[in-house]
Amino acid sequence: MPNLGLFTYLHLAANKNLTCALLKKKIVAIAYETVEDSSGKLPLLTPMSEIAGRSSVIIGSFYLSKQSGGTGIFLGGVPGVAPGHVLILGGGVVGTNAAKMAAGLGAEVTVMDINVDRLRYLDDILPKNVTTVYSNTYNIQKALSSTDLLIGAVLIPGAKVPQLVTRGMLSSMREGSVVMDVAVDQGGCIQTARPTTHAHPTYKVEGILHYCVPNIPALYPRTSTVALTNVTFPYALKIAELGYRKSLKKDSGLTKGLNLMEGKITCKQVAEAHEMDWTSIEEIIE
Amino acid sequence: MPNLGLFTYLHLAANKNLTCALLKKKIVAIAYETVEDSSGKLPLLTPMSEIAGRSSVIIGSFYLSKQSGGTGIFLGGVPGVAPGHVLILGGGVVGTNAAKMAAGLGAEVTVMDINVDRLRYLDDILPKNVTTVYSNTYNIQKALSSTDLLIGAVLIPGAKVPQLVTRGMLSSMREGSVVMDVAVDQGGCIQTARPTTHAHPTYKVEGILHYCVPNIPALYPRTSTVALTNVTFPYALKIAELGYRKSLKKDSGLTKGLNLMEGKITCKQVAEAHEMDWTSIEEIIE
Amino acid sequence: MPNLGLFTYLHLAANKNLTCALLKKKIVAIAYETVEDSSGKLPLLTPMSEIAGRSSVIIGSFYLSKQSGGTGIFLGGVPGVAPGHVLILGGGVVGTNAAKMAAGLGAEVTVMDINVDRLRYLDDILPKNVTTVYSNTYNIQKALSSTDLLIGAVLIPGAKVPQLVTRGMLSSMREGSVVMDVAVDQGGCIQTARPTTHAHPTYKVEGILHYCVPNIPALYPRTSTVALTNVTFPYALKIAELGYRKSLKKDSGLTKGLNLMEGKITCKQVAEAHEMDWTSIEEIIE
Amino acid sequence: MPNLGLFTYLHLAANKNLTCALLKKKIVAIAYETVEDSSGKLPLLTPMSEIAGRSSVIIGSFYLSKQSGGTGIFLGGVPGVAPGHVLILGGGVVGTNAAKMAAGLGAEVTVMDINVDRLRYLDDILPKNVTTVYSNTYNIQKALSSTDLLIGAVLIPGAKVPQLVTRGMLSSMREGSVVMDVAVDQGGCIQTARPTTHAHPTYKVEGILHYCVPNIPALYPRTSTVALTNVTFPYALKIAELGYRKSLKKDSGLTKGLNLMEGKITCKQVAEAHEMDWTSIEEIIE
Amino acid sequence: MPNLGLFTYLHLAANKNLTCALLKKKIVAIAYETVEDSSGKLPLLTPMSEIAGRSSVIIGSFYLSKQSGGTGIFLGGVPGVAPGHVLILGGGVVGTNAAKMAAGLGAEVTVMDINVDRLRYLDDILPKNVTTVYSNTYNIQKALSSTDLLIGAVLIPGAKVPQLVTRGMLSSMREGSVVMDVAVDQGGCIQTARPTTHAHPTYKVEGILHYCVPNIPALYPRTSTVALTNVTFPYALKIAELGYRKSLKKDSGLTKGLNLMEGKITCKQVAEAHEMDWTSIEEIIE
Amino acid sequence: MPNLGLFTYLHLAANKNLTCALLKKKIVAIAYETVEDSSGKLPLLTPMSEIAGRSSVIIGSFYLSKQSGGTGIFLGGVPGVAPGHVLILGGGVVGTNAAKMAAGLGAEVTVMDINVDRLRYLDDILPKNVTTVYSNTYNIQKALSSTDLLIGAVLIPGAKVPQLVTRGMLSSMREGSVVMDVAVDQGGCIQTARPTTHAHPTYKVEGILHYCVPNIPALYPRTSTVALTNVTFPYALKIAELGYRKSLKKDSGLTKGLNLMEGKITCKQVAEAHEMDWTSIEEIIE
Repeated sequence: MPNLGLFTYLHLAANKNLTCALLKKKIVAIAYETVEDSSGKLPLLTPMSEIAGRSSVIIGSFYLSKQSGGTGIFLGGVPGVAPGHVLILGGGVVGTNAAKMAAGLGAEVTVMDINVDRLRYLDDILPKNVTTVYSNTYNIQKALSSTDLLIGAVLIPGAKVPQLVTRGMLSSMREGSVVMDVAVDQGGCIQTARPTTHAHPTYKVEGILHYCVPNIPALYPRTSTVALTNVTFPYALKIAELGYRKSLKKDSGLTKGLNLMEGKITCKQVAEAHEMDWTSIEEIIE
Repeated sequence: MPNLGLFTYLHLAANKNLTCALLKKKIVAIAYETVEDSSGKLPLLTPMSEIAGRSSVIIGSFYLSKQSGGTGIFLGGVPGVAPGHVLILGGGVVGTNAAKMAAGLGAEVTVMDINVDRLRYLDDILPKNVTTVYSNTYNIQKALSSTDLLIGAVLIPGAKVPQLVTRGMLSSMREGSVVMDVAVDQGGCIQTARPTTHAHPTYKVEGILHYCVPNIPALYPRTSTVALTNVTFPYALKIAELGYRKSLKKDSGLTKGLNLMEGKITCKQVAEAHEMDWTSIEEIIE
Repeated sequence: MPNLGLFTYLHLAANKNLTCALLKKKIVAIAYETVEDSSGKLPLLTPMSEIAGRSSVIIGSFYLSKQSGGTGIFLGGVPGVAPGHVLILGGGVVGTNAAKMAAGLGAEVTVMDINVDRLRYLDDILPKNVTTVYSNTYNIQKALSSTDLLIGAVLIPGAKVPQLVTRGMLSSMREGSVVMDVAVDQGGCIQTARPTTHAHPTYKVEGILHYCVPNIPALYPRTSTVALTNVTFPYALKIAELGYRKSLKKDSGLTKGLNLMEGKITCKQVAEAHEMDWTSIEEIIE
Repeated sequence: MPNLGLFTYLHLAANKNLTCALLKKKIVAIAYETVEDSSGKLPLLTPMSEIAGRSSVIIGSFYLSKQSGGTGIFLGGVPGVAPGHVLILGGGVVGTNAAKMAAGLGAEVTVMDINVDRLRYLDDILPKNVTTVYSNTYNIQKALSSTDLLIGAVLIPGAKVPQLVTRGMLSSMREGSVVMDVAVDQGGCIQTARPTTHAHPTYKVEGILHYCVPNIPALYPRTSTVALTNVTFPYALKIAELGYRKSLKKDSGLTKGLNLMEGKITCKQVAEAHEMDWTSIEEIIE
Repeated sequence: MPNLGLFTYLHLAANKNLTCALLKKKIVAIAYETVEDSSGKLPLLTPMSEIAGRSSVIIGSFYLSKQSGGTGIFLGGVPGVAPGHVLILGGGVVGTNAAKMAAGLGAEVTVMDINVDRLRYLDDILPKNVTTVYSNTYNIQKALSSTDLLIGAVLIPGAKVPQLVTRGMLSSMREGSVVMDVAVDQGGCIQTARPTTHAHPTYKVEGILHYCVPNIPALYPRTSTVALTNVTFPYALKIAELGYRKSLKKDSGLTKGLNLMEGKITCKQVAEAHEMDWTSIEEIIE
Repeated sequence: MPNLGLFTYLHLAANKNLTCALLKKKIVAIAYETVEDSSGKLPLLTPMSEIAGRSSVIIGSFYLSKQSGGTGIFLGGVPGVAPGHVLILGGGVVGTNAAKMAAGLGAEVTVMDINVDRLRYLDDILPKNVTTVYSNTYNIQKALSSTDLLIGAVLIPGAKVPQLVTRGMLSSMREGSVVMDVAVDQGGCIQTARPTTHAHPTYKVEGILHYCVPNIPALYPRTSTVALTNVTFPYALKIAELGYRKSLKKDSGLTKGLNLMEGKITCKQVAEAHEMDWTSIEEIIE
């Protein structure tokens, strides 16, 4: 089946067996996670980030309950009782969407980022209970002592995320506070975060409850499937209409998604990960 | 200990053993749940209703996840995917607080009530994604077919709540939708609701996930304790300063809270529930 | 009068007589509708789109009245009665401005577009009673059954708009619902739309009331004239100060507006529409 | 048919023939317009006032169009062009609902009333483009010169409304501005207002366009019928269950609605209007 | 001049000379500050409280500047820099109006009160950057350590305000923070507050800048005069039309304002303050 | 000290002595005010503009008080009294931030700019009491007659700001109104503006109070220092890590900031201002 195509999330760099099997069958493998749009962003990752960001606040609120091992603080407060504090590291897609939900619940929300222009835009559009603060160790440390829910929302495509919160810094948080690292599978920005599963989603370090399931959107498949299809379908349609070869020639962003073709690896990261040969895309699709 | 006093939630009508034990020890028993303020409302129940109403949306959102047996719809939606629908039966304290949270998440929220003046006030103060609709069987039935989260928030102090949603009406809901009856322990307004526990909070009827833990505020004790103390403390202070006898004389609303005194039952419901004698409060405190 | 200039809306492709008359008199004809700004947008069309989009909601609300042949639904609802639904196809200038007004009235508004990044921006800035949904036939069809006012707001400069709503799809709408196609004169996105006049603005197809006057801004000339002058005046000033030749040389976007000069057609569409000769702008203004 | 009952809007004081016919047939006539709730308000008029108030802004916006004889100002403005001004006389049900819609469109809205406590509440709940101003001739006169749409929303049940705007005061308004007097049939607060019909809704005085149809809610029957039924149905149900006699005895507010019974007039205004005998309600229903 | 009347702010209890002079001339003295409305509130004080509350935030913001001796914190912050904290003691007229302004500037605002029902209303209507907290020494002390601007807004008509903030409690505030006690002339709720003048408005205690001018509305006479006249004029009109005797008989709230008449003191507080005889109003106006 | 570096605001073109001294010592002088980001904006000026814009409203409100020589109008109004008008010339960073604060206080705010696209964005994100109007002499003149606070917020980096408000135009303003020109030191857009000092901040022209201190952010150093450091620190860090030579080579925007190096002037404006030799940056850093 030399012309069989796969257009989906592949993550081949992390799976040599899969890579070899696909190569052997000469599958045309285009990976969602490396497709780019005209401005260099990753359009097939964005919807997942949106859902992960929004869901994280629901999940964090839920695990703050006493029954789940949390502090028992309700983020929204009630009249006469102050709301909880949510600290969001990163003002990108994940962080912005998390901030919208946390603000909607009435929490006191702080979004930190080093991109001040991004903070300016967030100041324009987010509700008034969201404060934007420049991200640095001093500000994070100061904020942590009153943080009930910490959301790590830093994602640098193709780059290692800096470790913004060390184990030591957690000690200023109240016992039973909740920490989530939405990008845990890509390194994460919180030292104590390590991937967990939907079956066993949480663990405690220094008394702090950690929720670090990498695939949060799987919780809400009805919403995330539609969101994903909204952005993948136009590519699928194009491939169906033009064939993959013509599509790849016409859309240089889609080409960035090509990982395997004609039994060769066309994606550098995959080739390097498995110490195999790399063939340039141009060479293959002329 | 004839002058020992108890000032807390008592629910004596539901517990004869406790009632008898307290009578024997001539405890002065003032029950939070029957204290009234000057306008006849129950001020020591309101904070619990606020927290239950607000928390219910977090809990409902959480149980809508696929992993919990829900439909997998995220209430807030994301750009390009419509949000979920929340139907709230009752626009009182529970319902209003639930509506605030659901609206904050970006859901499409409908609040139903038969008190149109209350709906007018809600129209004045709630965000624009909350719609107020007159409550009747026709409107409820019509709304249910697109409802993802149904919150029963009807509470009529001292009266049986009418059954607004029958088992048959649930059949128009999508499988995996979530039903919560916040007032389940006082009858509830949803036929299929029966009290559950924090240990086993949910069950399914007709494919619909039911969460019916009566004591929702126990999930967030740090918030609910402060909220409760805000309203009970002034009474406690008054009792400490004046003694209970003088306090009861001065504050007719507090008097409504007196259930037992000098070995006698002064609360009609308790006396009737256990078929015991009733003594008027006036008689006892002169 | 070889140097007489015309700087206004011209639409010469649609009018051969006018074209020939202007050529004969060697008029310098610069058409508002083809002037571009530095990012390739049409700045002299935008204000008209803004007014058309905003007005469309007033007009649609008005024609929903029973006296006009509409369903008799008031879009904003009242406390206890659910508001009406507005479906807007297209999230560009027309659609965004229509959404602002419809949301302001309290309607439940859905904006559909295939540009998810645009929907993200709308999600950031529009009120909470606006939902953004990816535009496809399935979603449109599903939405139509509860739509009271449908606004076609799709405009692709220089391209034929796809027909998003067929005659058959209208059948799911309630009789007396209102359909408006703001871009009806440029093809329109609703099959049953055909241009009408301010004198006879509406007609019915399949029981659905159609309002399809192409020139909506003419209803509100005091607002639209000022809006238009705001953007045309700086060009007029430049032409007055530098003369048209120098202005055209300096501002490549204004040059895009040049249709006729020295008795020659410099705009390809006009030349092709009338099967006449075309001269490149560069050739004429050196 | 001595026990036949009529429960609807009756306005018998204005129709002697109808009154006599009903008396002759010994109809039990309960008029919506005189039923009171426990706080002395007229609950069966409120929904009509809500719809009239909200609709008035749509109607006024529509008639401001050049084609309708208006100034051609679009109330909401567009970026770069200031919005129009709406002056609302009266901050009761009609005025508040009109203000919500006008503010939603983006107009600059002024609500005037002599009840400062009411203005305080409006300041709490209305959007920021609504200004509250104490109502007096000086303030009205000053505001009129920049008013594009004037809405008379003063209604004093059972009392003659003061004439707040004289013919002379209109002269400061721009020609083609629109005047609506929502309570025109109960006197109205604008001197030049006189009732018109849906067939011929407008006329001009001093160049100002007047729209004075008394029965605005008839434009949107689908919304107004549901709104009205929401409040009348509980009374109808009570009458059906208890019979009218018992219902009248139990509900002193409903009793206020009784106009005729057993061939006698029980409503003073009706009796006085037709110079006929009056019998006290108490006498008849014992 | 036995019938000469004075209708204004009088504060006779604080001025024996004035009292005696007016008595001697048999002035009819009606004091704004003791007139009551039908619900027992003081309607002629409310507008002054509104202006004082709103202005206090402007004044406090101004004095936070370094040049005025403040900390140099700008309350609203900017993107990337957290806003300042405003603590408002009292959620009545002064406090609510102060909260609106402080929230409008983007500060993090906390309103404390012991009336939880009032806090519930504030939670309904104030922006999301206002938090309501039950007022007690523990909560005040905790909040003070991060408070940049403290506004004392407690006013109990006719009663001594409790001292909520002691000198010692100020020590946790940052040097240069600002304290304002809006009700300083009626006791004030901050121990270190003492009345100052517009000429010398501020002083420092413990490094904290105090602004305690009693008559804040005098800063903005154009606004405060109109606001005051809005509420006093109807009384003035009534007195002019009916004469003071009839007016006092008809309006029992106005009667509460009568301090002196026919050479006798009719206001108990005034009589007691000067140890003079008191005559009941009823006795004098029959 | 040939390698000593200065990285701060320098304004060398205005100070020949300083320039010569630094040249003599062969200081590497990088000026904040000429550093550019990748899009050609001046990132190290923006935070100062934000604070100046926000503070200007506080200062203007304060000086409107009678005690400061103002009209005595409180910008926010109170219920029953209309708010004041704020006119902001320029919708850039200063103007937008001023508009946010003025809108927050409840004033009626007008922002004028000639960039209609910018006005569209402001219409998307600013509260509803902000109106955007195209800036021209006619509109400014018309607005001035009802303006209480005029804020000049026009700043064109490296260009002379046009004089938008002449002395004559001020005559239509009410005596005691306040004028601020935030960019007074760079020319200013108001003819009567001339720089003042924090010691003597105001003066009157034509009865209008002028506040024209150039360095407004100095009022709030705690906020402005943090805001500035947020954006300068990453540059400082880069210079510290790489050395200035490498940093300048790598970051072409930082290079724009280089004014002096190795005893030579590398900034044209500085060279021209002092009629000294200019050396191209490329030549020096190769």
